[in-house]
Amino acid sequence: MTFKDTKKLSELLPFWKSLNEAEKNEVAEHSELKIYKKGEKIHNGSGDCIGVIAVKSGRLRVYMLSEDGKEVTLFRLVNKDICLLSASCVINNISFDIHVDAECSTEVYIISVATYDRIAKENPQVMSFMTDIISLRFSEAMWVMEQILFMKLDKRLAMFLLNQANLENSDTITLTHEQIAGHMGSAREVISRMLKYFSNEGILKVSRKGIKILDKEKLGNRGDGP
Amino acid sequence: MTFKDTKKLSELLPFWKSLNEAEKNEVAEHSELKIYKKGEKIHNGSGDCIGVIAVKSGRLRVYMLSEDGKEVTLFRLVNKDICLLSASCVINNISFDIHVDAECSTEVYIISVATYDRIAKENPQVMSFMTDIISLRFSEAMWVMEQILFMKLDKRLAMFLLNQANLENSDTITLTHEQIAGHMGSAREVISRMLKYFSNEGILKVSRKGIKILDKEKLGNRGDGP
Repeated sequence: MTFKDTKKLSELLPFWKSLNEAEKNEVAEHSELKIYKKGEKIHNGSGDCIGVIAVKSGRLRVYMLSEDGKEVTLFRLVNKDICLLSASCVINNISFDIHVDAECSTEVYIISVATYDRIAKENPQVMSFMTDIISLRFSEAMWVMEQILFMKLDKRLAMFLLNQANLENSDTITLTHEQIAGHMGSAREVISRMLKYFSNEGILKVSRKGIKILDKEKLGNRGDGP
Repeated sequence: MTFKDTKKLSELLPFWKSLNEAEKNEVAEHSELKIYKKGEKIHNGSGDCIGVIAVKSGRLRVYMLSEDGKEVTLFRLVNKDICLLSASCVINNISFDIHVDAECSTEVYIISVATYDRIAKENPQVMSFMTDIISLRFSEAMWVMEQILFMKLDKRLAMFLLNQANLENSDTITLTHEQIAGHMGSAREVISRMLKYFSNEGILKVSRKGIKILDKEKLGNRGDGP
């Protein structure tokens, strides 16, 4: 890694300040800057243990994948986010598989599993950080689970569309109905029906170009309401 | 706590051996033996932070509860299991609510949150244990999520019935269809229909007394099959 990369890495890792000089050097030596293209797979479920990911720029999507190709998005990682689940071989008891894709051109540092494992065992503050980050991802995943199990589909879809518009920084969402269904763990037909309903309500306009949000406030009320 | 209680607690806590004498005394002083009746609520979601639970005997059910009373069972705790989520106020980033009920007469030790928090911060092995246990619960919850999202209902119901028969140590399951639906995050009608189907297949017999499993092997094949 270049000096510039090491400096950047030191800004991205919340536990950097708690490392001693030897540990800092070890992390810098065993980290690598990688650039992924939009749509590229970074981490591929079972057996994959690429290392700890620190996002420098761009956006990653972390999701579960069923045997028959159904997807459920768990959370997204953006600038300064850290992913430990991509290094699950060094975390005891993590027995589920996740997949990580780049949603746009994304730069990440990847810290080798052996290095991370060693400093986590030596340094209590790294271990404490590990507990915090796993608890955070656990909470995010449980939030998704609550949405899917307990929340009515109109609310969930409204929240998804608003969130997506935010991420794409545009009022028009270019995902297909199939893709939206995938993100939400639902079926295409169900999503299309609900989009048609929103469209009839004048909340959005569905066309071949995508889904254009016409009335953000009304959509927001759907997402927040009881 | 009596000497006998302290001895029992030392057997239940995997990190006991890593504590120094002062820490051992502190844990023993700030732990309490409690007995819960079948059906009694131990921990009640939001705002509740009763402490770390160590199960001495019996069985606890940990579940999520929606605003409109829908339940999803996440995992069960039996002899020697530890629950940290009932002390979520001392874990950073845990933002979801869980509920804990006794499924039968259950004895637990409850360690005070302040004491647990202090020893976790002082003792790296307690912190490391914390990471392990949170990862374990995370994995268990994700397993439930995978079941619900990805697995077909017949398989899920078959697995649930076999597991329940195992827990009740009987071929007859005394839960109502409503209760089974609650455990599985499904609707009563859906469960009743599937039970009728299994019954027609000669796999089980549904009566007012409960659900009697007639053909364990056939039910097992449902649960395991592709």
